[in-house]
Amino acid sequence: MVNLYLVRHGIAAEREEYPEDGVRPLTSEGKRKTKQVAQQLFKLGLQFDLILSSPLVRARQTADILKAIGLSSQLEESTDLTPEGSIYSWLTWWEEWRNKGGSSLALVGHEPNLGEWTEILVWGEAKGNLLVKKAGVIGVQLPESGSPIGRSLLFWLTPPKFLL
Amino acid sequence: MVNLYLVRHGIAAEREEYPEDGVRPLTSEGKRKTKQVAQQLFKLGLQFDLILSSPLVRARQTADILKAIGLSSQLEESTDLTPEGSIYSWLTWWEEWRNKGGSSLALVGHEPNLGEWTEILVWGEAKGNLLVKKAGVIGVQLPESGSPIGRSLLFWLTPPKFLL
Repeated sequence: MVNLYLVRHGIAAEREEYPEDGVRPLTSEGKRKTKQVAQQLFKLGLQFDLILSSPLVRARQTADILKAIGLSSQLEESTDLTPEGSIYSWLTWWEEWRNKGGSSLALVGHEPNLGEWTEILVWGEAKGNLLVKKAGVIGVQLPESGSPIGRSLLFWLTPPKFLL
Repeated sequence: MVNLYLVRHGIAAEREEYPEDGVRPLTSEGKRKTKQVAQQLFKLGLQFDLILSSPLVRARQTADILKAIGLSSQLEESTDLTPEGSIYSWLTWWEEWRNKGGSSLALVGHEPNLGEWTEILVWGEAKGNLLVKKAGVIGVQLPESGSPIGRSLLFWLTPPKFLL
């Protein structure tokens, strides 16, 4: 199986302060809590071949924190992970990445996308019934061959408060 | 919402040693790890109005450990939680319990039942795509009125190794 970890960005500044959604940064509380989550993931022994991040500032800052803690040496951005992104476009990328031998990947992005992508991978359709908190983490095992849609296994879902 | 926690029993003796499945006890490693999980749940601030347990020895021992750590003062057994039990029979009991004001319940039982019950509550059907380890914990928010089938929210799923 191939392990996929989906991490929602941390607490970000309010929309009123930043008319352009893409530049909203993490608040200082958001940075602090995200760092605690990253440290806990590191303590639990997690390592990612690659962190793939939404280019939006609050996600990219979250991804930078994961990388700085030592969870991966590789970080790339993908527009598939923006709020407008599509799991089907990402899956094309992912199948290529898996075929090149990738085995542990972290995605950093947004809600409702991450929860819905998880539901599509595990149950084949999105009902919006996963609660994914800011800086929350999801773990899914994807199959080594064939489509992962409706064929993946959910092994982890945690809000940050149960990690700290 | 009403919080439901589903806890799988800890590591139990092999089937070969105990021809009667219902009397298989936890191993000493199973007791130790289950106690660690219980302590961690207590540290995270969890409290249950009631622990409802399968009467099978490995489940009842797990439930006894949860109670002894201080997670609840109330413990009952239910045959709905045996491997042959039915979620629909349990739901009749649960709706009555909820209507009497219950708000935080822990179930201690078996796989594949606990994972499938969770899938039925959250997505309306069981696909067997949740990985629930021994002494693993699931957290689901059920609605305060109406049927919870396909209308509940999954907020937590963790193997013990990510709790310890």
